[in-house]
Amino acid sequence: MDARALRALLNEIAKGERDVESGLAALRALPFEDIGFATIDHHRSLRWGFPEVIFCAGKTEEQVAGIAERLAAHSPRLLGTRAGEAHYAAAQARVPDLQYHRLARCLYLDREPDRPRQDGVVVVAAGTSDAPVLEEAALTLELMGHRPIRIQDVGVAGLHRLAPHVGTLQTANVVIVVAGMEGALASVVGGLTSAPVIAVPTSVGYGASFGGLAALLAMLNSCATGVAVVNIDNGYGAGHMAAAINSRINGVSEA
Amino acid sequence: MDARALRALLNEIAKGERDVESGLAALRALPFEDIGFATIDHHRSLRWGFPEVIFCAGKTEEQVAGIAERLAAHSPRLLGTRAGEAHYAAAQARVPDLQYHRLARCLYLDREPDRPRQDGVVVVAAGTSDAPVLEEAALTLELMGHRPIRIQDVGVAGLHRLAPHVGTLQTANVVIVVAGMEGALASVVGGLTSAPVIAVPTSVGYGASFGGLAALLAMLNSCATGVAVVNIDNGYGAGHMAAAINSRINGVSEA
Amino acid sequence: MDARALRALLNEIAKGERDVESGLAALRALPFEDIGFATIDHHRSLRWGFPEVIFCAGKTEEQVAGIAERLAAHSPRLLGTRAGEAHYAAAQARVPDLQYHRLARCLYLDREPDRPRQDGVVVVAAGTSDAPVLEEAALTLELMGHRPIRIQDVGVAGLHRLAPHVGTLQTANVVIVVAGMEGALASVVGGLTSAPVIAVPTSVGYGASFGGLAALLAMLNSCATGVAVVNIDNGYGAGHMAAAINSRINGVSEA
Amino acid sequence: MDARALRALLNEIAKGERDVESGLAALRALPFEDIGFATIDHHRSLRWGFPEVIFCAGKTEEQVAGIAERLAAHSPRLLGTRAGEAHYAAAQARVPDLQYHRLARCLYLDREPDRPRQDGVVVVAAGTSDAPVLEEAALTLELMGHRPIRIQDVGVAGLHRLAPHVGTLQTANVVIVVAGMEGALASVVGGLTSAPVIAVPTSVGYGASFGGLAALLAMLNSCATGVAVVNIDNGYGAGHMAAAINSRINGVSEA
Amino acid sequence: MDARALRALLNEIAKGERDVESGLAALRALPFEDIGFATIDHHRSLRWGFPEVIFCAGKTEEQVAGIAERLAAHSPRLLGTRAGEAHYAAAQARVPDLQYHRLARCLYLDREPDRPRQDGVVVVAAGTSDAPVLEEAALTLELMGHRPIRIQDVGVAGLHRLAPHVGTLQTANVVIVVAGMEGALASVVGGLTSAPVIAVPTSVGYGASFGGLAALLAMLNSCATGVAVVNIDNGYGAGHMAAAINSRINGVSEA
Amino acid sequence: MDARALRALLNEIAKGERDVESGLAALRALPFEDIGFATIDHHRSLRWGFPEVIFCAGKTEEQVAGIAERLAAHSPRLLGTRAGEAHYAAAQARVPDLQYHRLARCLYLDREPDRPRQDGVVVVAAGTSDAPVLEEAALTLELMGHRPIRIQDVGVAGLHRLAPHVGTLQTANVVIVVAGMEGALASVVGGLTSAPVIAVPTSVGYGASFGGLAALLAMLNSCATGVAVVNIDNGYGAGHMAAAINSRINGVSEA
Amino acid sequence: MDARALRALLNEIAKGERDVESGLAALRALPFEDIGFATIDHHRSLRWGFPEVIFCAGKTEEQVAGIAERLAAHSPRLLGTRAGEAHYAAAQARVPDLQYHRLARCLYLDREPDRPRQDGVVVVAAGTSDAPVLEEAALTLELMGHRPIRIQDVGVAGLHRLAPHVGTLQTANVVIVVAGMEGALASVVGGLTSAPVIAVPTSVGYGASFGGLAALLAMLNSCATGVAVVNIDNGYGAGHMAAAINSRINGVSEA
Amino acid sequence: MDARALRALLNEIAKGERDVESGLAALRALPFEDIGFATIDHHRSLRWGFPEVIFCAGKTEEQVAGIAERLAAHSPRLLGTRAGEAHYAAAQARVPDLQYHRLARCLYLDREPDRPRQDGVVVVAAGTSDAPVLEEAALTLELMGHRPIRIQDVGVAGLHRLAPHVGTLQTANVVIVVAGMEGALASVVGGLTSAPVIAVPTSVGYGASFGGLAALLAMLNSCATGVAVVNIDNGYGAGHMAAAINSRINGVSEA
Repeated sequence: MDARALRALLNEIAKGERDVESGLAALRALPFEDIGFATIDHHRSLRWGFPEVIFCAGKTEEQVAGIAERLAAHSPRLLGTRAGEAHYAAAQARVPDLQYHRLARCLYLDREPDRPRQDGVVVVAAGTSDAPVLEEAALTLELMGHRPIRIQDVGVAGLHRLAPHVGTLQTANVVIVVAGMEGALASVVGGLTSAPVIAVPTSVGYGASFGGLAALLAMLNSCATGVAVVNIDNGYGAGHMAAAINSRINGVSEA
Repeated sequence: MDARALRALLNEIAKGERDVESGLAALRALPFEDIGFATIDHHRSLRWGFPEVIFCAGKTEEQVAGIAERLAAHSPRLLGTRAGEAHYAAAQARVPDLQYHRLARCLYLDREPDRPRQDGVVVVAAGTSDAPVLEEAALTLELMGHRPIRIQDVGVAGLHRLAPHVGTLQTANVVIVVAGMEGALASVVGGLTSAPVIAVPTSVGYGASFGGLAALLAMLNSCATGVAVVNIDNGYGAGHMAAAINSRINGVSEA
Repeated sequence: MDARALRALLNEIAKGERDVESGLAALRALPFEDIGFATIDHHRSLRWGFPEVIFCAGKTEEQVAGIAERLAAHSPRLLGTRAGEAHYAAAQARVPDLQYHRLARCLYLDREPDRPRQDGVVVVAAGTSDAPVLEEAALTLELMGHRPIRIQDVGVAGLHRLAPHVGTLQTANVVIVVAGMEGALASVVGGLTSAPVIAVPTSVGYGASFGGLAALLAMLNSCATGVAVVNIDNGYGAGHMAAAINSRINGVSEA
Repeated sequence: MDARALRALLNEIAKGERDVESGLAALRALPFEDIGFATIDHHRSLRWGFPEVIFCAGKTEEQVAGIAERLAAHSPRLLGTRAGEAHYAAAQARVPDLQYHRLARCLYLDREPDRPRQDGVVVVAAGTSDAPVLEEAALTLELMGHRPIRIQDVGVAGLHRLAPHVGTLQTANVVIVVAGMEGALASVVGGLTSAPVIAVPTSVGYGASFGGLAALLAMLNSCATGVAVVNIDNGYGAGHMAAAINSRINGVSEA
Repeated sequence: MDARALRALLNEIAKGERDVESGLAALRALPFEDIGFATIDHHRSLRWGFPEVIFCAGKTEEQVAGIAERLAAHSPRLLGTRAGEAHYAAAQARVPDLQYHRLARCLYLDREPDRPRQDGVVVVAAGTSDAPVLEEAALTLELMGHRPIRIQDVGVAGLHRLAPHVGTLQTANVVIVVAGMEGALASVVGGLTSAPVIAVPTSVGYGASFGGLAALLAMLNSCATGVAVVNIDNGYGAGHMAAAINSRINGVSEA
Repeated sequence: MDARALRALLNEIAKGERDVESGLAALRALPFEDIGFATIDHHRSLRWGFPEVIFCAGKTEEQVAGIAERLAAHSPRLLGTRAGEAHYAAAQARVPDLQYHRLARCLYLDREPDRPRQDGVVVVAAGTSDAPVLEEAALTLELMGHRPIRIQDVGVAGLHRLAPHVGTLQTANVVIVVAGMEGALASVVGGLTSAPVIAVPTSVGYGASFGGLAALLAMLNSCATGVAVVNIDNGYGAGHMAAAINSRINGVSEA
Repeated sequence: MDARALRALLNEIAKGERDVESGLAALRALPFEDIGFATIDHHRSLRWGFPEVIFCAGKTEEQVAGIAERLAAHSPRLLGTRAGEAHYAAAQARVPDLQYHRLARCLYLDREPDRPRQDGVVVVAAGTSDAPVLEEAALTLELMGHRPIRIQDVGVAGLHRLAPHVGTLQTANVVIVVAGMEGALASVVGGLTSAPVIAVPTSVGYGASFGGLAALLAMLNSCATGVAVVNIDNGYGAGHMAAAINSRINGVSEA
Repeated sequence: MDARALRALLNEIAKGERDVESGLAALRALPFEDIGFATIDHHRSLRWGFPEVIFCAGKTEEQVAGIAERLAAHSPRLLGTRAGEAHYAAAQARVPDLQYHRLARCLYLDREPDRPRQDGVVVVAAGTSDAPVLEEAALTLELMGHRPIRIQDVGVAGLHRLAPHVGTLQTANVVIVVAGMEGALASVVGGLTSAPVIAVPTSVGYGASFGGLAALLAMLNSCATGVAVVNIDNGYGAGHMAAAINSRINGVSEA
């Protein structure tokens, strides 16, 4: 809306040809205008159901506790990733109903555990060592209103273990694949389902896995179609991405 | 179920001790569901609407022409990526209605140009140099039955150019972001929309872009949620992923 | 400005308590308001003196010629970097007074060659092979209204060649250091002057220079203070950065 | 040997108080001190206002304490970066008015806290995890006689948080941008201001951030002009660079 | 073979139109041989002689103990690599005859120490620091029924130390070479024997060995023929590979 | 000095025809030839059946032709890898019965095409683009006296294409897996067979495959046991390794 | 078998006390010891003056003590690098006159401290943080019979500090340059002297020094001639190399 | 200004022929030439025997010809590395007696071919593909007045080929080892001789040699002592380093 259009609008109001509320609505519809970016934020927090996620690594117990307390005052749900026991202890002292998921290393709050949840997301992990990342993804999904199916310990060196789950994979709306080492599971699963696949490389492995680089590169180079990749060990990111896709497929507004 | 058990089962059927439907159910319950993997392939080719994509780089003109001819005999649509003019010339001699998209460097066939297409995908590119990758993604989407919106030349160093498109981004089902150099557009777009974002790093840039590595790492490390990444310059992969998501959101079976 | 304030403003206009132009001005003053980002752009093009730089690599002759023609219609100055002879020939056919700097591989236009220029920038290059990058930086500076001093062939393996220039380096407002191989010149110059130093690694070298990586890392790790680094071979970027600093030191608005 | 001493020497020769060979020997014994390089050092320490910065990492408490004591004897200001609590304790035992900035992990001395300071530098950080680097840069600036404005928690995934600060950014003399993860803030800020931007990548992030490499590459490849980069987590280096620029813009000799 | 065809087949059997053996043959001819993948697993565990190897790194003592207990109930042999003393203590409390190899950092069980073992494998290590990896390989071989010859401390900088072993190397069925630093031993040994060589790079070294990368690349680039490489420090993998080769040469079914 | 010459020398001493000191001097003058290393070489050329392989890349046509001519004079077989058409033309002018394998880019000579060959090696390639490397491996095996089975186009994204070959893989003596992109086929095949697997990463792929690095790392990190890796695109090396293993399993001396 | 034993053997044959075939067998049984490689080792230990250097990192206290005790029984000198205090304590219990150099982290023995030593080697370090590597090099030289000159804290950002030492550098036989960060000192020193320069990159630095990689690459790419490089932090290797050169220049046999 | 000129100046002052201020000005005008750095340069060109080496890669024919002409006017010797045939043709037109070494890709001039040359340097190359780098090193040595011994095609996979040369290696003053692929020859040679070894990695190899990186890392990590490394393919650098060492051992002033 350029200056001319804006002047015309104000003229209409000045002349009484347009009432204030209608003018306000018109202004609100401007691309970024007055309240543009700011409202995005409100939309986001409404949509996602929890206003912000705390990345606890590198934060002091005190900092995490303070943020958790503030968030818990305004939201029935919160999530803190990469949280140590000490982080949880400090935060739980301020938010008594805060919970801790030891394996996923997440602290979280869910004051509406019985609200309805969406089906459609499957989270698959190659090995038991990948479980923490699988759980971080699954917990993220649960807090965002989904009910993920977990499939574990189905590495590609033993395809028969994957076989019983082929049906589940084929009827999913979206699949998260968590794998370290050579990361081949993403390609195998991508070949078995037409659902979009979110691949999460993990830092599991040693020597020339170079902290997850081997799995990351493998997943980016997947010969299967319909595979996209998030950062190494980033279960939260994969969960969030899958939630965004699943909610839209289910026609449910987020949270 | 080993051969002995299988023989026993068939013997029961032969002797009338077990009826056919019950035998069928028992066979179906076998670990790999007897016909599981094999049927997948048929499902896939039906779903995607073109049986295979030709990656032309490194193939001779003759090879590409041969594959294109064979595919065109069974499918109304086909796509060949990384195709040079010579590839196209050779293939078009065999498939006269084959077309060539010079910018995207794709040869393609679409014998049903008027079939209905789905809305919902937006493809954004940071710079004009990213256009070939944007077009490869968009062409993939079009062949798979979608009608993508293209937004170009909206690099993050001039946010005002992105501003008019915020509404479009916010109402999309899925957004593809194509960017080279520092790849920051994925994060900015990811912060402006709650739609899932497929990020495509491009090899555009020089010096320390290291062939797209800089953009790739940036996109993997995006501070925005709901962003996943495909391989460098892989417009086809992003298009396919977006098509899979959009079709499911629209409740349309693929192709 | 939140919704309440906006409504109050419109009410004042509706009631005739505020006239339209005053309302328009108030709206314009909003942080990013209606035309926020867009005006930034105008500010920028006014300031820098040429609206956009054409990165010619990867563009066709036709594209470069078209952009050059459009820019030349509105600006007395333009710059195209990484331009081949063919780019120049095509563009010069449309903009007859366009010039070409063979060594810097730049096409450029400067219709006000006699306007006053600022002193204060020194551009130093380690070897003769670094000259193209030095010239790209110097040309950028000249087009932006500066008069850089060039010092060449003063690699650190022969410090006596640098010695006669110490005075020049110490009285500069800002120094650009261009060096490939081990990139040590940035540290040596950084130790000789208190002026801010912009270091440009070049891809000159072979073997384990890895396309300029060795010089890049060396410059980032400089033990001298007051050194910052731009991308490999990015003479334009260094020139622009130096121009921004020098203009402000000289109290001259850009261009 | 300054000009006065040199003149005295020549006078002695002219007056026959010293013979030629003795004068020659005296001149030869000046290794490099008479002119040029030697005086640089004095100039530097005068200019910068503190003679040397102690990089404490890898030094023993005893070493840091010894250096701090010696510096504090000749200078009203000193700075030690990467200092642990033990470093501080040991040094403070010798320099009682030494202070410690826990977040920035710096020990410092400022015996003239009320001297006038220059405005013009803005330090922006993307996330709260980047605060230590922001504070190291800001503290460096303060000790060098500047009064930086701090802007925090304005990551690119929420541009509305940056919006209120656009005016501040546009009127700055020089801007420092501190960001980890994908480092995109440098490009966004670079597009919003014509001031020179010093970008500091941080090691904040995980997985494929590879210790700050992702942000470093992104910043080097910024599509915005007027951006130069210092080493990962090098807040001190950015602060020093910004101080050099700002002092010259303000026409204030350093320190 | 889809459900319809399968039902038809069973109907034929039920009606006596096809006999059981012919039906069995038809079923066996199904793409995946109906029970193919599933039986693989049983074959594998029978063959290798211990059903699974526990990679202890990153597992809790409790987890390792639980898995060891379960495996020991069904197998006379088990192996746990990268096991700390605490892992062993916890597991040994449940499996009293479990043993620990301190140097190889392996816990293991071998209830048939006197069974016959195959000759033919030689394990060579360059330096004493490579001994843990050598022992991991050798222990793996012993548990799989082989009797490896160990040769140690024969780095290429002292070829005379290798000389007495040339005969042993030339008569081996398969040779494992364990080396860190520059990994040259693989090439030297590969040139001295026509036996297949499995090379294991180790992370021994410092500085530019980059955690074993130098040795890994050297081994992959060996100018000797008949050399293949496993992951850095992966003694277990090399042992397993060598066992598979040696058993086949000896005509002994595994385990 | 072979055994005969050595015996003659000792006989001369025994007969008094040569004194001890002269004998000592003669023995000392034997650099290394008498025993040990020198005979290794003869053993090798006898065993492998062709004395040397010509790596043609980087050699002139003249050089390749000269070496081929010399080798063909003493051996019924020879192999030249990475040979262009020009290499072949020059060499064939000197060795008229030399042949050229266009796809594998190898020139070769086999004057005993009908000699008996060993079974037992299977060579599997993921995609048609991997065919040149597969053929280089297969040709190496054929020249060394083996009759490899080729399996092509069985990428992991379509496991059903691999299924019909499971039996072949399980009864092989040794399997070579050739794959680019994410290299996952090595893990999948490794899980399906207990035969030793030689994995060859190829440079097939684009973007973040980084010239085969992605496949190389994936194969080194394979979760399947019994997998070892050779250099990128090194079909010859894999063929040679497989030949060494297969010959020993079959109890056939090489060549 | 040394010359004496060989002569005895031939004498037996000459005297008829041993027949020719038995003599032949005895000669054949000498694996490699008779001539050549075996004597190398003796030559080496005589030359270098201490038979072996203990790389203590990764060895237990017990192992280091045992090796030290054994070496001290046969040699008046020994050196152990990367030795912790615990290593020293354990070893000194067995070798009472063993000494420890805390800064260099070396344990050593020198029972002939007053023997004559060679001049000619200069060891230069850029910063105080590089001192441990400088001392490791210097101690190695001292144990090998040299008397190195140490020059410290002469980083390239303050060339005046290097100036007084130019004469020393120019008259040296060989110069070792130790530097971390950007490693530029090697180039500057290489330009000031015609003596051969051994450059040692150190891991001193942070962020994008990547553990010494920046300095390593810089030194390898030095624009100065007469510079060669050893591994990161490898003071011992540089000392040894310099000793070999200096001894030969001085015409002194080693040790 | 050398000592003579300085003495003359002081004499003028002493005699009253020049006043003090004029003398002071004359001394001040000596930027750095009077002492120290300036004379270094003259020393260098005298010592090395040719004033500068032309690195031709990236220079135009015209530039190379111009520099060659200028150098040939003042020196009986010159060297241009990385010179193509066109470079030579252009330069030879101006310097008729200029020569070209096709294999080494060097143009050179040697007008005193019969001057005496020093013995003592041995240049060893692993394979025939390394010959260009070997020749560049050898030619450099010859131009600098040495007579290197060349040993070729002695890769570590065939140690017997190296055996006849052990004596030559052991009596050398300095050895250059040129090797690509896994670069193991440097370690093997380093173990056979006590002479200092200059290792030159070459870019020969493919796949995971990564342009010489594998050989470079291997050489830096050599387990042999007395080995230092120059840049990939840098035969000139190795030759220069060896010449500096050899001249000093022989007590011959350079050139």
